[in-house]
Amino acid sequence: MPIRRTVFFISDRTGITVEMLGNSLLTQFDSVEFKRVTLPFIDNIDKVQEALRQIEAAGQEAGKRPLVFTSLMADNLRQEIGTANAMVLDLFDRFIVPLEAELGVKSAHAVGRSHSAGNFKDYNHRIESVNYTLAHDDGMTNRNLEAADIILVGVSRSGKTPTCLYMALQFGIKAANYPLIPEDLEKMKLPPALLPLKHKVWGLTIVPERLQSIRQERKPDSKYASLQNCKWEVQAAETLMHNAGVSFLNSTTKSIEELATTILHEAKLDRRVY
Amino acid sequence: MPIRRTVFFISDRTGITVEMLGNSLLTQFDSVEFKRVTLPFIDNIDKVQEALRQIEAAGQEAGKRPLVFTSLMADNLRQEIGTANAMVLDLFDRFIVPLEAELGVKSAHAVGRSHSAGNFKDYNHRIESVNYTLAHDDGMTNRNLEAADIILVGVSRSGKTPTCLYMALQFGIKAANYPLIPEDLEKMKLPPALLPLKHKVWGLTIVPERLQSIRQERKPDSKYASLQNCKWEVQAAETLMHNAGVSFLNSTTKSIEELATTILHEAKLDRRVY
Repeated sequence: MPIRRTVFFISDRTGITVEMLGNSLLTQFDSVEFKRVTLPFIDNIDKVQEALRQIEAAGQEAGKRPLVFTSLMADNLRQEIGTANAMVLDLFDRFIVPLEAELGVKSAHAVGRSHSAGNFKDYNHRIESVNYTLAHDDGMTNRNLEAADIILVGVSRSGKTPTCLYMALQFGIKAANYPLIPEDLEKMKLPPALLPLKHKVWGLTIVPERLQSIRQERKPDSKYASLQNCKWEVQAAETLMHNAGVSFLNSTTKSIEELATTILHEAKLDRRVY
Repeated sequence: MPIRRTVFFISDRTGITVEMLGNSLLTQFDSVEFKRVTLPFIDNIDKVQEALRQIEAAGQEAGKRPLVFTSLMADNLRQEIGTANAMVLDLFDRFIVPLEAELGVKSAHAVGRSHSAGNFKDYNHRIESVNYTLAHDDGMTNRNLEAADIILVGVSRSGKTPTCLYMALQFGIKAANYPLIPEDLEKMKLPPALLPLKHKVWGLTIVPERLQSIRQERKPDSKYASLQNCKWEVQAAETLMHNAGVSFLNSTTKSIEELATTILHEAKLDRRVY
């Protein structure tokens, strides 16, 4: 039987940072089965006390004290959560204190600085990137294609759209995507609109068997979804990209985050942070 | 003159976690101007040594040692980065060691566990959520609307699409969105397709002046973009949502992250983590 532990992620704002850090750490403990509870917007003492009750109940139920990752900023709330019958891992205790010493200034101890809409210029850039990416999904238009930071090509259902949307939302990248359709594959040429922009073009490929299963859900028992066709398209697309000098990644074994960061890194594009 | 410091985010994988944590911490130091450098995929000793050279050069240039947030997992790489002429804040040192003690097991010390495409079932759920959200953008179809986890309403350009895409990508939520068009506003009724699904409906609103400036970029000097029309639409949409018992949030002052997590929290929907 695996060890079971309850883990709380407690934040005075969205909880996204503390949840992401905590999960990243917990992936290092395979043999433990974690039950995760995220409590966002814990921004007053009543809510902290309610959280303490949940932590206590979870500990009683499991017979083991829970883990608590917390990023509360207000001193009184941090002190209160520190009384939990749990292992409390306080992000700010562990980092803000040494950072204050190093920087020689006091921190603001202010709630909600990250993931807030504080900087309009950056924020507009992000929304514009999302709008651009949506307008340039699936080769929908060639208009203003030269404004793209990245143009992603690949056969239909190779993962272009989620990767582009992630680049836009997470990093403020204008990411167009362009399908390689059977006509392109027969001619063995990139779509003509992309030729002058080749330095921005990146490719995705995928294992044919996985492509088949994705397409099968979409258009069951079509030629489009047949393994034979998937094999042909993938093989032809890889040859085309290789011949055209387009670097490509395999989406079968890489997450959206890995695809997006690899492309940005290789294209030497700046990552914005929101 | 503000204090200037260079900050490195160094990861053996995407760097997303360490970048997010570091930025969240740095927002607490207003008076310091940080220059950020993210170095992802630092997964061998040569790359660590190249990173050390960059850190050294940045320190020389600034006359102050840089800050280094790092999440390298391999012991030899962590030891090497620890020799940097910098303040090194090692996520794993600070958390993995106490976690090992608490859990009574050794961590895997394995690279690339988070943000990897390891879990196909979860991963497919995420991609399906993105596809669903795209197919149900802007009231494009009522087909299968009942499968939505959330249906977001609001006037055109109130921020529905980016919020829905974020919920899909970050949390695996199927988020449809539905514009409130002038006909709805005149009738003062939710679109009929939404009435049986009202328990899933949430609203966005926006300050009319901000809406005007967004619409003005899209359709300059149109009635659609006029302040008078924006004021009317916003007022009518708020009244409609209020009368229909639909909770709504203001996108003018909230980030996409805040909108998404608030809605999920109030709707009591589980957040998945990718």
